Order: sequence, then structure tokens, then C-alpha cells
Amino acid sequence: MQDGCFAYEGLDRALHEKARLGIMTALVTHSQGVTFGELKRLCALTDGNLSRHLEVLRETGAVEILKGRHNRRPQTLCRVTPDGRRSFTAYLEELKRVVRKALPKAVRKAGRAKDFPAGFRPAP
Amino acid sequence: MQDGCFAYEGLDRALHEKARLGIMTALVTHSQGVTFGELKRLCALTDGNLSRHLEVLRETGAVEILKGRHNRRPQTLCRVTPDGRRSFTAYLEELKRVVRKALPKAVRKAGRAKDFPAGFRPAP
Repeated sequence: MQDGCFAYEGLDRALHEKARLGIMTALVTHSQGVTFGELKRLCALTDGNLSRHLEVLRETGAVEILKGRHNRRPQTLCRVTPDGRRSFTAYLEELKRVVRKALPKAVRKAGRAKDFPAGFRPAP
Repeated sequence: MQDGCFAYEGLDRALHEKARLGIMTALVTHSQGVTFGELKRLCALTDGNLSRHLEVLRETGAVEILKGRHNRRPQTLCRVTPDGRRSFTAYLEELKRVVRKALPKAVRKAGRAKDFPAGFRPAP
């Protein structure tokens, strides 16, 4: 097998992180944008965690943060950018390929617990 | 939409990390085990990184590390455990569901770049 064939270079780390995967899915599902408070609720994140992850996504250009007012109260709106939508689609397509390859190998019956190969013992 | 519907509780962090996703895929593909050196090559990882990720996987019980000799030389063999195979299968099934839900939303044509909602401006 080829060098690095399980390195998954195509899986962008900024998008692969679990919380950011959730944030991006929420944002592509609501293309008009999601308020900070609503996004917190949908992704079950704290203020601090959501801010930190949004900052990573904003730095890569996947997300834009808009400030304004709604019913006279200040509001923060988070929205996926066209670039972000493209990268996220490419990331998900790659993830689909990874799952499609790995799943049939993983589900293969393990059979009964095998002995250790001759001369091998568990590391301490 | 439900609280935490994009929190993806089912995606085990130990398995989701990109390098460990590669390591686990390599290991389920070779159920007899993979030597440390070969795993390094397949996953394009350094000694230190591979050791660190294997330790995480060993702590969760997904992987076992065997020490022995092959052609008189000491060798380290890494092998997925039956538990690890089960968890990894469950993880991949969950990932498949995530991709299946997110991808149709992501590929939806973004249309032309939208204006900002009335009264909203990009955060500085």
C-alpha cells in the first residue's frame, strides 16, 4: 500500500474538528445565518467554545460574523460564506469516500479473539 | 430545531481525530496487525505523533500493542481489538449519517452573494 494512504490530506482540520463540523452543518442548513445564541443552543456549546471555533472558521474564510440590532437589541449573526460552502462540500465528499472505504473493512467479522503471534506479548 | 441537534454526541472524539481515523482504518484493514514502522509509513506520521495517538487508542481499549521479535529484531505490532472494531464501526455508521444529512444542505446552490440583512454589518 502507498505511503500516506491513510493520512487523509483531503480532510481539512479546520472543518473536521467535531464542534466545527456541527457549526458548519448548522450554518449550511440556515443559509440566511444563525444568531450566536441560536447556534449555541443547536450545537450545545458554551459562549467561550463557540466564539473560539467561530474565530477559527472566520480566519479560514468559511464563516462571516455580522453585528446588528434586532428589536432594538444587539445581535450577532453567523453566516457561511460562498467559499465556506464550497470547502465544506468538498470536505464532506472526501469524508463520504473515507467512510465508504473504511466501513466494509471495519464491519468484517473479527472472528473469535486471536492468540498473539508466536513470540509476541502485550507491551507493558 | 432541537437543542444540541448539531452536537454529534455519537462521534467519539478518540476516533474522530484525523490521524486516529487513519490509524484505525489502517488497522481494521489489516486485522493481523501492522508493525509500528509500517503504520508510520501508511499514515505519514512521525514516531512521536504515532506513539501519542496509539496511546490514546490503547487507553480507550481500541488498540493493543504487542512486543516481540521478527528475524531476531525487536518489533512492535499494533492491532485493533474486537472492542475497537465495534466502536469504530459504530463511529463510521454515525459519520455516514452525519454526511448523508449535511451534504444535500451544503451542495445547495448558494445563489449570488447576498447583501447583509438590514442594519447588519461585518464584525470588525
